[in-house]
Amino acid sequence: MTQNLVYLNGEYVPADQAKISIFDGAISLGMTVTESTRTFGHQPYRLRDHIDRLYLSLKAARFDAGMTPDELEKLTLEVWEKNKPNYAAGTDAWIIHNITPGQWVPSSGQKPADSSSTVMIITLPLDLSYWADFYQTGCHAVTPFTRIQPAQSLDARIKNRSRFIYTLAESEVKLVDPKAQSLLLDTDGYLSENKGGNFFLVSNNRIRTPSTINCLDGISRQSIFTLGKKLNIPVEECQLLPYDVTTADEAFFTSTPYCIMPATKFNGLEIGDGKVGPITKQLIAAWSDLVGVDIIEQAQASKVS
Amino acid sequence: MTQNLVYLNGEYVPADQAKISIFDGAISLGMTVTESTRTFGHQPYRLRDHIDRLYLSLKAARFDAGMTPDELEKLTLEVWEKNKPNYAAGTDAWIIHNITPGQWVPSSGQKPADSSSTVMIITLPLDLSYWADFYQTGCHAVTPFTRIQPAQSLDARIKNRSRFIYTLAESEVKLVDPKAQSLLLDTDGYLSENKGGNFFLVSNNRIRTPSTINCLDGISRQSIFTLGKKLNIPVEECQLLPYDVTTADEAFFTSTPYCIMPATKFNGLEIGDGKVGPITKQLIAAWSDLVGVDIIEQAQASKVS
Amino acid sequence: MTQNLVYLNGEYVPADQAKISIFDGAISLGMTVTESTRTFGHQPYRLRDHIDRLYLSLKAARFDAGMTPDELEKLTLEVWEKNKPNYAAGTDAWIIHNITPGQWVPSSGQKPADSSSTVMIITLPLDLSYWADFYQTGCHAVTPFTRIQPAQSLDARIKNRSRFIYTLAESEVKLVDPKAQSLLLDTDGYLSENKGGNFFLVSNNRIRTPSTINCLDGISRQSIFTLGKKLNIPVEECQLLPYDVTTADEAFFTSTPYCIMPATKFNGLEIGDGKVGPITKQLIAAWSDLVGVDIIEQAQASKVS
Amino acid sequence: MTQNLVYLNGEYVPADQAKISIFDGAISLGMTVTESTRTFGHQPYRLRDHIDRLYLSLKAARFDAGMTPDELEKLTLEVWEKNKPNYAAGTDAWIIHNITPGQWVPSSGQKPADSSSTVMIITLPLDLSYWADFYQTGCHAVTPFTRIQPAQSLDARIKNRSRFIYTLAESEVKLVDPKAQSLLLDTDGYLSENKGGNFFLVSNNRIRTPSTINCLDGISRQSIFTLGKKLNIPVEECQLLPYDVTTADEAFFTSTPYCIMPATKFNGLEIGDGKVGPITKQLIAAWSDLVGVDIIEQAQASKVS
Amino acid sequence: MTQNLVYLNGEYVPADQAKISIFDGAISLGMTVTESTRTFGHQPYRLRDHIDRLYLSLKAARFDAGMTPDELEKLTLEVWEKNKPNYAAGTDAWIIHNITPGQWVPSSGQKPADSSSTVMIITLPLDLSYWADFYQTGCHAVTPFTRIQPAQSLDARIKNRSRFIYTLAESEVKLVDPKAQSLLLDTDGYLSENKGGNFFLVSNNRIRTPSTINCLDGISRQSIFTLGKKLNIPVEECQLLPYDVTTADEAFFTSTPYCIMPATKFNGLEIGDGKVGPITKQLIAAWSDLVGVDIIEQAQASKVS
Amino acid sequence: MTQNLVYLNGEYVPADQAKISIFDGAISLGMTVTESTRTFGHQPYRLRDHIDRLYLSLKAARFDAGMTPDELEKLTLEVWEKNKPNYAAGTDAWIIHNITPGQWVPSSGQKPADSSSTVMIITLPLDLSYWADFYQTGCHAVTPFTRIQPAQSLDARIKNRSRFIYTLAESEVKLVDPKAQSLLLDTDGYLSENKGGNFFLVSNNRIRTPSTINCLDGISRQSIFTLGKKLNIPVEECQLLPYDVTTADEAFFTSTPYCIMPATKFNGLEIGDGKVGPITKQLIAAWSDLVGVDIIEQAQASKVS
Repeated sequence: MTQNLVYLNGEYVPADQAKISIFDGAISLGMTVTESTRTFGHQPYRLRDHIDRLYLSLKAARFDAGMTPDELEKLTLEVWEKNKPNYAAGTDAWIIHNITPGQWVPSSGQKPADSSSTVMIITLPLDLSYWADFYQTGCHAVTPFTRIQPAQSLDARIKNRSRFIYTLAESEVKLVDPKAQSLLLDTDGYLSENKGGNFFLVSNNRIRTPSTINCLDGISRQSIFTLGKKLNIPVEECQLLPYDVTTADEAFFTSTPYCIMPATKFNGLEIGDGKVGPITKQLIAAWSDLVGVDIIEQAQASKVS
Repeated sequence: MTQNLVYLNGEYVPADQAKISIFDGAISLGMTVTESTRTFGHQPYRLRDHIDRLYLSLKAARFDAGMTPDELEKLTLEVWEKNKPNYAAGTDAWIIHNITPGQWVPSSGQKPADSSSTVMIITLPLDLSYWADFYQTGCHAVTPFTRIQPAQSLDARIKNRSRFIYTLAESEVKLVDPKAQSLLLDTDGYLSENKGGNFFLVSNNRIRTPSTINCLDGISRQSIFTLGKKLNIPVEECQLLPYDVTTADEAFFTSTPYCIMPATKFNGLEIGDGKVGPITKQLIAAWSDLVGVDIIEQAQASKVS
Repeated sequence: MTQNLVYLNGEYVPADQAKISIFDGAISLGMTVTESTRTFGHQPYRLRDHIDRLYLSLKAARFDAGMTPDELEKLTLEVWEKNKPNYAAGTDAWIIHNITPGQWVPSSGQKPADSSSTVMIITLPLDLSYWADFYQTGCHAVTPFTRIQPAQSLDARIKNRSRFIYTLAESEVKLVDPKAQSLLLDTDGYLSENKGGNFFLVSNNRIRTPSTINCLDGISRQSIFTLGKKLNIPVEECQLLPYDVTTADEAFFTSTPYCIMPATKFNGLEIGDGKVGPITKQLIAAWSDLVGVDIIEQAQASKVS
Repeated sequence: MTQNLVYLNGEYVPADQAKISIFDGAISLGMTVTESTRTFGHQPYRLRDHIDRLYLSLKAARFDAGMTPDELEKLTLEVWEKNKPNYAAGTDAWIIHNITPGQWVPSSGQKPADSSSTVMIITLPLDLSYWADFYQTGCHAVTPFTRIQPAQSLDARIKNRSRFIYTLAESEVKLVDPKAQSLLLDTDGYLSENKGGNFFLVSNNRIRTPSTINCLDGISRQSIFTLGKKLNIPVEECQLLPYDVTTADEAFFTSTPYCIMPATKFNGLEIGDGKVGPITKQLIAAWSDLVGVDIIEQAQASKVS
Repeated sequence: MTQNLVYLNGEYVPADQAKISIFDGAISLGMTVTESTRTFGHQPYRLRDHIDRLYLSLKAARFDAGMTPDELEKLTLEVWEKNKPNYAAGTDAWIIHNITPGQWVPSSGQKPADSSSTVMIITLPLDLSYWADFYQTGCHAVTPFTRIQPAQSLDARIKNRSRFIYTLAESEVKLVDPKAQSLLLDTDGYLSENKGGNFFLVSNNRIRTPSTINCLDGISRQSIFTLGKKLNIPVEECQLLPYDVTTADEAFFTSTPYCIMPATKFNGLEIGDGKVGPITKQLIAAWSDLVGVDIIEQAQASKVS
Repeated sequence: MTQNLVYLNGEYVPADQAKISIFDGAISLGMTVTESTRTFGHQPYRLRDHIDRLYLSLKAARFDAGMTPDELEKLTLEVWEKNKPNYAAGTDAWIIHNITPGQWVPSSGQKPADSSSTVMIITLPLDLSYWADFYQTGCHAVTPFTRIQPAQSLDARIKNRSRFIYTLAESEVKLVDPKAQSLLLDTDGYLSENKGGNFFLVSNNRIRTPSTINCLDGISRQSIFTLGKKLNIPVEECQLLPYDVTTADEAFFTSTPYCIMPATKFNGLEIGDGKVGPITKQLIAAWSDLVGVDIIEQAQASKVS
């Protein structure tokens, strides 16, 4: 088996040797714009959608990647081709883009004129073992003390790795349950998102999710709208409150790696009857159909391995 | 001249070869707790105060440095001793601590059990050339579009490098003036701080500064309270608004590298008579006295070099 | 005529002797979850909907009733059967459920382990005399000083009797007009609800009402959506402001006892032409049809008696 | 031993038979204004201060008690005299006032003209066993999901029993730790109070507590200002955030029954060194001196009994 | 050419002699309710809609015009007929209504009993030269420091001339670009409006605009809904953020004089490809068709003259 | 008796003929910066303080007066000298400055380059009859529906005549009491100010007033700080809520014309014992002493005349 290679500023390096200067803006300023794509059956899933969103994030972040979206797409596929041989049938990969403005030594007060952006393209085996059980049992969603910042501070749609807030939130909910998954509220108390995932709930056969004023416009989130249309289940954006979760029939998170993670408990209370619900199951099945991979089975397998 | 050495997880490496894994939480989560100390006449200034604050930040961030404050202080002095010979008389150094929770590969869902914190101790020549002119002319403070996040999202007193918001703000003010310095407002419209600096204004011989509910409790900020007491000028914390800057007699920022940076213009309007004011000058002189280094002269020299 | 009997923790007691301990959580903590149903022509109207909502409120309040919804429904009908003989033709009854966590002596710091919930099921003659004139003249809606608490303090959908805020609001509007009915705003200045009633307005043949982020999801409120569909009049949820009332064509409140109470004046200004409007009248007529009781006539009769 | 007698609307009734109508505003509207006083060595402590505050609360609540403060004070002492013989040396009593507007049958729309206020004066053995251990170990303060309502909804200084929010908060923190004590935040994320207690923290030998814009102006809270002056420790009111607790040296709650309850843990993190601090101990000792009762010893004794 | 005549409280006066007392509420209180209508091909466009809105504003402002809407409409047409002969073919006019409560000498504390409203009806040549280039190049929209007041302070739908906030905002954006057009945010950071114009953006062939909770319900804004329906392009109201403009395909303002003003730059970043977009062009063309005037050509002509 | 002359852009005109163009920014934009000074015994009181504040307001408003503060002061005294002969002994005058940016025809999109500021200097007999009775009875302070705009919309310290909000508020409180005086709250529910006056309350011999984050820094307000110092009564700035007024001992407004206006009722409840309090009386007496005019007597006289 060959080594996992990472693209790093024009070079291919083995993942365990992929390093960047401690003076890079990624470290000195948390200034990394990012995307996470995954493959299904070794095919990158909606890669171009992810790359397009990356360029919107870069525009809003006011720095550039030093290449066009077409170039980045081509390069990404090249990276994936290089690493694909390492992936056994039935397994899949995460494809991560990290773009930073490059060197930014703090003592100079400003980004040096000759500094150019840092581009990382990373593929990693998609290890779903952490989430595998949740497809059966559902997870426990808990609202942390920390509230997501309002959009006038930083719009949650700019996908970036300056994620102190989300990481802290994730630590906090572990006080309630060591396996709890955070569900952040915004500063007005409305539901927003999880570190890396969007949130949905089902009541009276209607699916509802927060609008993107306080959360990422996730590609997986968009898939729920598509699947809802296909399955004839209405999907709506609206302002949601903890009470809506407490009284919902079903709930789930969506994110690139696990697609759909059912939630069956919220702040210590059972959601619905405390079991993964029928609409959630229907959505997972439809998604599996769409991509030709049995999502739950794959997760179970990654757990065993 | 020997090489500038950086302490990186137990090893000394030349600064230009100091690199960390792209899977470190610094990069994947922006999860770096930090401090910036400086030397005056080659003596670290209030190093222990900085280290104590670092440990408060770590506690609030819910991860640890893998060593005690005493150990870190000792190590820091060791790093400085190693590099000091490189520093000519009249020059000084920045001492930077970056602590991260270590490796945090996203696909695993959680911090790996065997990951331990990453500790960086960095010394850098204190290049003040960017700020040197501002001692004479004052800088132009401008309020950016971006608002600092409220404390219920992330308390500004936790000194960290997840600084997307501040970096964006700094880019935005350049639309008004390529040399503008950001002065962020909070989400209620009150003055908070600058990326890396606190803000003060002087009206009727009274110094005022925002309270620490929305800004860092800067060590340099504390020095103004000390100097104010010494010079018999009252220094007060209160809620401040843009109107207070517009109608102030004088204004300045404080930060570890430049100590005091006068501001003589605010959102296009002159502050007072548009010149560096007498109390600001008095404070710079008193600080220079205190540390035995002529702050302005040193900055001028760094510009020339 | 037999006595009006109240169900109180397993016993039937005459209403005027129905008492609970002053150490009950109802009194010591205002911790009463509640529902108000009414009969039309001696038939309980949407009783099960009320009971289902009661159980959602209890879940959100984190205590239980000590019986299942089915048991409570059965018991409620039993209470009503016992008291029905007292009700003359043309009159109707209020059916009230009050559930509390039971004894909660404050000095013990916590709810005693052996304390069990208090269940009250009350029927009362539906005396509509207070509202009767408003069907013809409309009432005067006035915004009080007191603002409804935001959902992150207490979600207005948890129907409870901890109603200090609403009662105070009701006292305040009497300063403007001794017959004024309160229309509370939320802390952002949006319309919410009345103590016990939802609010609707009509503009250009469109009915609008606040969404349930700041008000009860009233069963009577739901009836307006049903009637609107039947009458082919669009009914929408949205954020509404005082200006919307000032410039509306018609307005009304809905609540279990009076169903629809027209409002023809708002903060001293006439709504529309100051008369009960055609769509409001149409809705009252359609509701009367639906339930087989002339709502206005019944109210007039209760006034005479 | 004679029976514990409660004053209820002009009559003395045994506590276990003290009941009020289920149609009282206490139950139908949560409309109870209240005070809790205690005795030290069988002497009511600052009874008149409590009664004066009760009358301020009543004024703000816009209903009256049907008697003057002097009459209520006299009556209270009479109640206490009647029950005092039941109290062994070393034990003390809670004295509770509950005032409601009286009967308020909902179907009438308004308070009936002939309804007069309900007055309850209750004495209870002061059972401190629940808190006794906290004097040695400190308690675990946890911030609940629920936020205290803002003052424009209901001013926290109006002491009342419409405490749904506080009771819910208390249930929520038990998810983190079955012995946790709630520390509510307000809707801007600032520290406010506990159900029934104020909060203080100690940093650098300075005591700080939230100002009364979002919490009760507790009589015990006032005692800390008095004791601080006596012990020469500055006590300040200011806006406080969770970070202030995380980084404090010591912390404690104050309330009528337990006087001072040390807190040594906050949201899972140790406060200071995780032990009851020296200033907290000094305050408890000074308070014991002041009232001639060893507060800790009394609590321990109540635990044993 | 005859003189431009203004209607002022019952008299016709030449525009350059039209003056009002410095003690009028317009000056002493900024208390002017207003409307701006324009003609297309010398026909007043939706005059009655403007007058109806004027009367809603007056109602909300709690003073009256001293005449009925019918009378005001008739009078307005009379003013226009008098001045129309001055207008060459191809040119058009602005028709402005200003209504004030009349004399309001401050020293009397209140509006004098004998003061009656001031009514101004003004026609002015519609000089579009300031905006003419923007039809080709698009304008630069910039968010000012100043935020529009929330509706609970003053509902933006009450069209009035108390426009200190908007005028200040317009000055502020000139710091970024001397030709910048302000795009105000509200106090939560959402897009609202421009001084005198509404804002729209186009993404994925969908037109979106802020709902009227924080902006004027512009008659020109309503025209976009009408044209959108005609052109089969969906138009939606929703909460919008700066990120939505940054990532939009197209954007434009609407206002009575210029109808549609394309925006191609936002806070220094190009919108879409930085050119006036196809849907914007389609809308301008459709509007020109509707009113029988080539809007762009007319603007160009007014620039030349 | 000679005519009352007004200074208007370089000319003296009789007050009843003082008019400005309807195209002045005062009318078209509500863009008037202003000051109100008064005389005591025919001596202008703190005129220079008023003029200095006027220039701060102008700076913040980003336009200028076309003359220096010295020139304006000289001119003001000249205007007063011209009109003084009209004033009988015992009477006094109001001196009003109104400064506008000058002509600002809306159709031009911007202020015309050749437009220069409009300067009005007005003296008026100080008619105190409206307030005269309040010195004996106190006024009724009522909180209106309308909330003062937050400082991030418009800082209340910029004294201007764009006062739609305040005028509306004043109309609203008349619904409660035809003689009510408005006491505006800000959008967080804190006390701010009155149209033209600051607010103070007295509790336990301590005077408190809102800080200037939401109200004018009134010259009369400053006088209370001066008088408090002289009389040895502490005066503090803090956040105040309606509850503070409800439970205060005394309350009053301050403003240039009436100096101090006692308030004895608040939202229908008596303040203290409902009579003008001893500290309020002491302050009025001390003020009268300071300026050599019996303030109450003068007001009574103006009522008689």
